[in-house]
Amino acid sequence: MLTLHSSPDSAALIVHVALEDSGLPYRIVQVDRANAGLDRPEYRELNPAGLIPVLETPDGPLFETGAILLWLADNLPEAALAPKPGDPARGHMLKWLFFIANTAHPDLLQIFYPERFVPPEGEPAHRALLVARMHRHFGLLEKAVASEPALFAPPAILAPYLGTLLRWSLSFPGDQAWLRLADYPALHALTLALEAHPAAQRACAAEDLGPHPFSAPLL
Amino acid sequence: MLTLHSSPDSAALIVHVALEDSGLPYRIVQVDRANAGLDRPEYRELNPAGLIPVLETPDGPLFETGAILLWLADNLPEAALAPKPGDPARGHMLKWLFFIANTAHPDLLQIFYPERFVPPEGEPAHRALLVARMHRHFGLLEKAVASEPALFAPPAILAPYLGTLLRWSLSFPGDQAWLRLADYPALHALTLALEAHPAAQRACAAEDLGPHPFSAPLL
Repeated sequence: MLTLHSSPDSAALIVHVALEDSGLPYRIVQVDRANAGLDRPEYRELNPAGLIPVLETPDGPLFETGAILLWLADNLPEAALAPKPGDPARGHMLKWLFFIANTAHPDLLQIFYPERFVPPEGEPAHRALLVARMHRHFGLLEKAVASEPALFAPPAILAPYLGTLLRWSLSFPGDQAWLRLADYPALHALTLALEAHPAAQRACAAEDLGPHPFSAPLL
Repeated sequence: MLTLHSSPDSAALIVHVALEDSGLPYRIVQVDRANAGLDRPEYRELNPAGLIPVLETPDGPLFETGAILLWLADNLPEAALAPKPGDPARGHMLKWLFFIANTAHPDLLQIFYPERFVPPEGEPAHRALLVARMHRHFGLLEKAVASEPALFAPPAILAPYLGTLLRWSLSFPGDQAWLRLADYPALHALTLALEAHPAAQRACAAEDLGPHPFSAPLL
């Protein structure tokens, strides 16, 4: 039995979708973020960085979304979550997994949590630079999805990862909004493919994310 | 034959060490960064993000340091660059690989390239926040190396990756210096192990990095 440590609308959604695709038995534990659940010693034992998600496995507790996704894919080759080692597509999957994990994802987190990077007076200029960076990243990913669609088609692990970053990017309300999916047709198609994918539907229903969690998330 | 696209003191050093450990034949091509070599169309064909390193392989051009490292490790299980899929240590290697790639590495790049993230007047405050973040990251990595030393022992791919981040972190001169290895004994030991590791010695000699490239880099 695997245990996923989660919280609402966190990166645990990405692992949640992959777990649904894996067919493995699992349970979800909600971390009480509002009451410093990430800072409790027993949680820091699982992930010393104090971040969500953690997946408790027979090999011990794992953290980092990308690491958990690859671990699931490589332990369950029959689930076709990723090209296997030795497959000519393997390196191409890996290059986009790392690009998403170490460029798109951290830059998006900077837009959500600017206080971790700049003082309050620096936030507007910082935000403008980060939004421009995100558009460059999504521009590269648009071309990648268009040219290598199989890498990003559910149940591929890249689908829920990229789809969840799009969900978050679309969740800024009103004059804070900065992304229109119409500008990125291949990424738009990816969000629709996820919404038509049963494993993603089950994970999103369990998290009560509304009818269009990736293409038109509720604000 | 593999081709590594490199430039002086770039992340290509990390792949260079792993290639030396792999025993595979390879050649190195220097990208002319000073003359916009990263922006040339032929380079963008290899890596649309315009970053170093790229490794040209029989499967096509790969980019992202972490992706290239994993691809080498998984294609050459006999080189013992990483625990294999199914090994109970695999997930633990992956969690630290992603932590290094998506947290320590991008935060360190923010210290080197603040202009990508903040306007000039915001740089001092930004730098102070990022240096504090890097100390937290190295603190977690110190504990990880001390508690799971085999994951970080050469020829493990985590060794040159973490060692190169330490090299860069130690390369700030004078009153810009912010890291003392004496504060991180397990990380200090890792840099010494790398300097005693023949594959790392060969890569560093080829790049003319001096006698102590990881523990006391030339400024």
